[in-house]
Parts: sequence; C-alpha cells; structure tokens
Amino acid sequence: MEKRYVIGVDLGGTKISTALAELNGNIISEYTIPTNAAGGEQEVLGRILSAIEKVLALGDKKVDEIKSIGIGSPGPLDSKKGIILETPNLPFENFHLVKPIEERFKIPTYLENDANAAAIGEFMFGAGKNTKNMVYITVSTGIGAGAIVDGRIYRGNTCNALELGHTTILPEGPRCNCGNYGCLEALASGTAIARIANEKLKAGAESSLKSYEVVTSYEVFEEARKGDKLSSDIIDKSLEYLGIGVSNIITIMDPEIVVLGGGVSLAGEIVFDKVNKVINKRCFKVLRENCRVVPAALVKQSGVIGAVALAIMESQ
Amino acid sequence: MEKRYVIGVDLGGTKISTALAELNGNIISEYTIPTNAAGGEQEVLGRILSAIEKVLALGDKKVDEIKSIGIGSPGPLDSKKGIILETPNLPFENFHLVKPIEERFKIPTYLENDANAAAIGEFMFGAGKNTKNMVYITVSTGIGAGAIVDGRIYRGNTCNALELGHTTILPEGPRCNCGNYGCLEALASGTAIARIANEKLKAGAESSLKSYEVVTSYEVFEEARKGDKLSSDIIDKSLEYLGIGVSNIITIMDPEIVVLGGGVSLAGEIVFDKVNKVINKRCFKVLRENCRVVPAALVKQSGVIGAVALAIMESQ
Repeated sequence: MEKRYVIGVDLGGTKISTALAELNGNIISEYTIPTNAAGGEQEVLGRILSAIEKVLALGDKKVDEIKSIGIGSPGPLDSKKGIILETPNLPFENFHLVKPIEERFKIPTYLENDANAAAIGEFMFGAGKNTKNMVYITVSTGIGAGAIVDGRIYRGNTCNALELGHTTILPEGPRCNCGNYGCLEALASGTAIARIANEKLKAGAESSLKSYEVVTSYEVFEEARKGDKLSSDIIDKSLEYLGIGVSNIITIMDPEIVVLGGGVSLAGEIVFDKVNKVINKRCFKVLRENCRVVPAALVKQSGVIGAVALAIMESQ
Repeated sequence: MEKRYVIGVDLGGTKISTALAELNGNIISEYTIPTNAAGGEQEVLGRILSAIEKVLALGDKKVDEIKSIGIGSPGPLDSKKGIILETPNLPFENFHLVKPIEERFKIPTYLENDANAAAIGEFMFGAGKNTKNMVYITVSTGIGAGAIVDGRIYRGNTCNALELGHTTILPEGPRCNCGNYGCLEALASGTAIARIANEKLKAGAESSLKSYEVVTSYEVFEEARKGDKLSSDIIDKSLEYLGIGVSNIITIMDPEIVVLGGGVSLAGEIVFDKVNKVINKRCFKVLRENCRVVPAALVKQSGVIGAVALAIMESQ
C-alpha cells in the first residue's frame, strides 16, 4: 500500500499530543491525552501506543499507510539509538522508546529532542520556510534551541547539540537547574523571570505585582506593559540576557534567520525590539546584517507539527 | 598534465608563508616573505603572487601540475566570492584576492578565514585526524575558531561562523577591539592576559613581573609557573573564562573533540587542567563525557599547513 501519511507525537510532561498528517504537513486528525507521568515508564509508553492507534482511527487510516512516526521529547536523548537518557519531568531513564513502537506498528520511528523537532517544524512549515540555515530558540519554562544547517537538522556527536539554554553568559550568575551557574536559562527563561520577580517581592520591593496571588512571567510582562517599574526592570534585564544568548548563537552559527518561539516570545514587540538592540550592540556587522530575528509561526502547535515535520524529513 | 600538488598560502599581518605540497599533505617546498602591509593592497598582492611563483620554482614544479591554491587570511571575509571584507592588521577592504590569483595562474583558488584553515589542517593532518566533528580554537593575540561538521568545514550563511572570540561571556566585562564588551577574546586571549597584568602593575600590585621591561602573556605564564601570586591569579581567571568559552562551544556544537592551539595553548598542562575543570563544572554529562579537549598538533605551522589542507579539501 502506498505510504502517504506520517504520525507526529509530542511527548510532554503533562500531555501527549499526536497528529496524523499528509506528507505536505496537512493534518488529517489529532488526538491528545494526559501523560500521567506519575504512572511510570510503562504507563506512559502504553499511552503513547494507544494515542497512536487512536489518531490512526480518527483519521480513518491503516498502519501500512504510514511512512514514519516522529517523536519529539524532552532530553537529553540518544536519538540514534532511540533512547530517552533522562528527563526532569518524565519518569524515563535510559528508556528505549523507539524500539517498542517500531515493534508494535512496524513503522520506522524517529526520536528527537523537542526543540529540534520544533526547529524542523518551523523550517518546513513555519517562519523558516525557504531558508537553508536557521536557528530556532524556544523561551518558555526553559530555553531550548535547534539548528538547521544546509536544510538538515544539526545534531552533533551525541545528538545533544544546541543546548543554548545551558551556555554560561554570566559566570557568577544564579544557579541553574542543571547545576551550573549563570546559564542563559537561569537568567532569561519564563521561570527565571518569575523567580526574580518573586525574590524581589519577598525582599519588599514596591510593585503592582503585589496584587497577584501567583506571579509568573506572564504577570511580569503584563505589569511591565502597564508601566510598573520593577516589572519593567526585570523584563529589560532578562531580555538583555536573551539578546546576549541570541547574539552568541549568531556569532557561532552564522544563520540566515533566528526564529524565536515559546511563551515568552508571545510578548511580541518588547521582546524583539530589545533582542535586536542587543544584537546591534554585540554582533559583527556582516553577521547581524545578514540575519533576521523573527517570531515563530507555529507557536501553540510547535510540538506536534515539529514531530510531524521530523517524521517527514527523516523519511525522505 | 596530472595535477598532483597544491599550494597553501598563509597570509598574516607580518609575513606571507607559502608551501607546495603533495595531495597527502607532504610538503615539497616552502617560502616565506614579509607581508609589508604598510605598502598597501597591490603591494601585498604582488608579494603573494611572487611567493607562489617562488615556492613553485623551489619545488621544481610547473603551474599546470597544481590542482588548487588555498589561502588562509584574517577575516571577516566573503569566502564564496573570494573577497577580504576588512582586516585589522592588513590593508585590504572589500578586496578581491582570489580573482587576480586565478587570473594569473589559472588554478582554482580558495580563500578561507585563517582559523578555519587551521581547523582543516588539524582535521586532516593533526590532532583531529580520524574524527568527524571537531572544533578548533586558537588562543593567541586573538581567539579564533573553526568547526568541522561531518568531515566538512562549517561556514555558516556568510562564511563567518565560529567567531567564538567575540561571544559575550561577561556582559559588563572589558571592551573588546570589536566594540563589544565582555567578549571571550577580551578576557582570555594572550593580549587580554598581558593587558590585565600591565594594568595591575600600573596600579602598583606586588609581583615578580615588575622585573620585566615588557610584560606579555608569556612572562605572566612564566611567573605564574614560578609561583608569583599576581601572575597565578591572572592566569587562573583568564583560563576560567577560556574554559567557559570551551564549555559553551561544546554545549552548542556537541563535538567529538576540541583542539586547542595558538600560543597560549603552548603553556600546556596548566591550560588543559583548568579548562577541563571548568568543563566538568559547566557542561552536561553526556556532552563532556563524549568530548576530549586536546592540544593542537601543528601549532607552529598551523597556518600554512591549514592553507594546504584547505586546498586539498576544496579540490576533492
């Protein structure tokens, strides 16, 4: 039977999103279930398998019409071997995810870091269309990134390249979840913005943020927009660091385009204005004049479309 | 006539080094002349052309036995077009270097950033032999780098990738020659080490460095080795920053091997011990356990052998 479809699986800490799509990325059916990470490895695997069956049934397609399955997962992974090495928000450790899926469905299955999968999605169907060298950066709870080099995903030797969130940009900076100090992620992620705001509030700073029971990066952006001084200062400093991270990746990778995605990027103009200002200050002219920084096009569906794009790219 | 040889040209601020070599890298003849940069573009070009003729004559070969010419030059360049865009220590600005050489000799000629050329040299004939993904970093007056990805030089969109020396690792750090603040080069290059030492001496610091008329990074390393406190502190801090730069490039490129070259790397164990210590502190386990940091093998001839290797790689 002609294999004209692929399946994408976005494995997240709270939900598993799947989509059945044509080879041009057109989505036929979608299905999402809770991850139930607390249930352990086999429970989550079982949910992935049944979600794949469900999305097939919803799209009225058969297993032998499917060319490939792409899975985007938090890392670090061994994507060559199809293993999840460890994940902070999922119960997997050295877990063979690809093997049981291939055994069940007899469909070639590809596992990729979720930021890499999202990068492939933006490259094939989003803001990176018609480019050849692209860096994708997602700024939300954490900061992840992926690079497309000459039209292919850049993996590196262990398939864990582009961990931009864990590059050091302030050697004596705050401790990061990874154990290092002064990582970009500890300075500019949504979590970092919320942490800094809550620390300042606890220390008695004056701010309209005091009216909220829970302060996340969303509220800090909101109050900054309304003119709150503390919020504005925090946002400005975080975006300065984000701009440094973007400048550094431009200086190293020399891409045509940097696509910024993730929740923080949704704040829009304030983010892009500041990041561009920092790039103009810190990057070589030849590099910055030949690189655009643009918003992601697939923000909310970046995970599952990324997984679909991964399946398409890898099966070509 | 069978083309069994290549020519490498290392264009430096003070001298032009050329070598005629077999396709396996074996050098047949070498010739070096002063650059005479003060003489201007046409003067330097004339010297390059006559050096190529001289190294051919010394090797007793004819123009039509030469497969290709490789030129390593300081950047930024447009290596696709064969243009030197601008160079701090050479008189070139938007200068077509490849065109007049190809016109004179009718030999395909390739221009590459000198750090990239040295990276190709280490990859083909030095410490990076038998690897596929390598980062080369040279630490001397400046800090340059080049990456080999799947056996090819990584250029980026404008051919100016891997400007590691100009990534920011201390946002409020000292001003760099490039105009930015807190670049790796302004913190960890030989020039930076000398500058910091001279600043401290001028401010009245106690140190055995006082006995020298001129203090370069060489003397700082020497006195650190003999136990001078000021020198040790300066070296330790600079190598901490170098270690951060190396950690960041490992975190982004995920290479099999990092080759450290340039004058500063010749200080040996003290450099590699400290850099490895920082990597252990700052890099993901999966990345650091799969990447070795090793000394360059071609240090003194890295320029001209790199240019030869460039000629060989590009003509394949």
